[in-house]
Amino acid sequence: MDLIRAQERMLTHPAHAQVLGNPDYAFGAAFVADHFCPILEASIPIIDAGLFHADAVYDVVSVSGGAFFRLEEHQARFARACAAIRVRNPFDREKEAEILHELVARAGLRDAYVWWTVTRGLPPMGRNEMVDPLKFENRFYAMAVPFVFMFDDDQRARGVDLVVSRDHIRIPARAVDPRAKNFHWLDMQMALFEAGDRGGEWAVLTDADGYLAEATGANIFAIVDGTVVTPDSGCLEGITRQSVMDLCQELGIPTACRRIHADELKTAQEVFMTTTAGSIMPARSVDGKPVFGHGGAGELSVRLHNLYWEKRWAGWHATPVRYDLAKQEHQP
Amino acid sequence: MDLIRAQERMLTHPAHAQVLGNPDYAFGAAFVADHFCPILEASIPIIDAGLFHADAVYDVVSVSGGAFFRLEEHQARFARACAAIRVRNPFDREKEAEILHELVARAGLRDAYVWWTVTRGLPPMGRNEMVDPLKFENRFYAMAVPFVFMFDDDQRARGVDLVVSRDHIRIPARAVDPRAKNFHWLDMQMALFEAGDRGGEWAVLTDADGYLAEATGANIFAIVDGTVVTPDSGCLEGITRQSVMDLCQELGIPTACRRIHADELKTAQEVFMTTTAGSIMPARSVDGKPVFGHGGAGELSVRLHNLYWEKRWAGWHATPVRYDLAKQEHQP
Repeated sequence: MDLIRAQERMLTHPAHAQVLGNPDYAFGAAFVADHFCPILEASIPIIDAGLFHADAVYDVVSVSGGAFFRLEEHQARFARACAAIRVRNPFDREKEAEILHELVARAGLRDAYVWWTVTRGLPPMGRNEMVDPLKFENRFYAMAVPFVFMFDDDQRARGVDLVVSRDHIRIPARAVDPRAKNFHWLDMQMALFEAGDRGGEWAVLTDADGYLAEATGANIFAIVDGTVVTPDSGCLEGITRQSVMDLCQELGIPTACRRIHADELKTAQEVFMTTTAGSIMPARSVDGKPVFGHGGAGELSVRLHNLYWEKRWAGWHATPVRYDLAKQEHQP
Repeated sequence: MDLIRAQERMLTHPAHAQVLGNPDYAFGAAFVADHFCPILEASIPIIDAGLFHADAVYDVVSVSGGAFFRLEEHQARFARACAAIRVRNPFDREKEAEILHELVARAGLRDAYVWWTVTRGLPPMGRNEMVDPLKFENRFYAMAVPFVFMFDDDQRARGVDLVVSRDHIRIPARAVDPRAKNFHWLDMQMALFEAGDRGGEWAVLTDADGYLAEATGANIFAIVDGTVVTPDSGCLEGITRQSVMDLCQELGIPTACRRIHADELKTAQEVFMTTTAGSIMPARSVDGKPVFGHGGAGELSVRLHNLYWEKRWAGWHATPVRYDLAKQEHQP
């Protein structure tokens, strides 16, 4: 089965070239605390704790063919993350959605990557008040940029080369809960550099005992004895991860969330990753060794990838972008 | 022994009221990538990985009475941190020092908290390039603000109420090395909120086995059987921590860096914390129980605190601020 060239399709999408947005927003649109602006003008105060203490949660939803995917689930996950780290979103669920819609509309994007965050914001003047979450002025920031594929069509079609990090473990949930999607990425970025040094294209991290946690910015999956397995803890509860579970159920393929030792990747039938910024990404090798039974992307991985995109373009969990929200911007 | 009221002394320092700086810089001065600006105008692009991936290292040095403390050691530690996470500082050691001097001079501060960072900066356009540290455009940001005491004179004099976090462990070094001072603080901030919930004023975190790692933004010390002890791993190699070791040597007090179980705090003779933004901070209680033998700040803790400030004001490891660097700013 050939992998659907989803990236190419986006670029040649009939509506893609249509200039819907304000040309000032050509590189993307941002929302900073209380106003919209072009992405290249968007910045956050150097005294925001979201920067200097990485004290924030965020989420990312994708838009393809002019529709958000599982928007309500992303928003629900984000609300749980805010509660987990005790920040108050200055906007309610409805207003938050409206901002995300308007960002995509202003940028005139049919295929977009939409990111938003609530940061701890401006700290209280007195250090004594740092023990009280109510003393901080939490802030909201967001942006919509053209959809960026974590791996391009060619890479997904052939499968990517994964490396299991030896130098870094994933930050454990007892320190920072990965289910509350957050900026703590240094372990994952350092693992990427290690992957590069070792001839790989992307990194997977384990916990202290060698059990898989997550790939850099992505969930990790393996197919073991015909069952699609993914770690049950130490990782983000990915929306694309859930989508894969749903697709497997539709196809009658057994799934399991369980502890998976990194060594299981050596004998797995297939290996793939999932993330909003890349959908389903087959792996062809782990630590330089071809994934069992094939030298390229696994057959089921490709099947899941293709089904994912076909269903999305057919309106699966789709919320059409409210392009009318930007009307006042591009119709003078 | 009474604790020296160092904070009060700063506020009444003869030179403090002297307006050395540009009034635009009254709240502090910042340096953003390539230019100086007032702190309230300083911001970083929303697309800097220092924000969205907390991918950065930083350092903080204090200025008291118009002189930096152990500036060269802070710079050396910062250089090691840059190397550890593979960012390239766009400025050499000399230029970096000049920027820090000029920030303090522009803000006209005699007592300052000077913070600087190199972030991963702007990511490469292609995700494929994220495995190569050379593909990022690393960025430099810095600021100088009036010195903020982590605990005020009264708190330090009576000793603060510490809480050992039960809900969060410190991010382990195998995930993110705490010796490369970084923005990964969510564990430490959540522990602070827990401390607040439990009636405490500040938090201490352990590793997964219950051994002390560090307090939120500070090193932790205990006096056990007459020896001043502090954890040997899982923590920042603090400059104030080193200063305490130096002071102990001067006073002939034995010291040891070793693993310390949190339970040892229950029977310790004294407990204190150290950090640039607070010097030496005695604790009077741990988890609601008075520290052994005294209901307030421990005698040796206060002695170390006072000696630290006396020596600093007498020029210990001092580098006078080059206020002339701001001359063109405030002498029109």
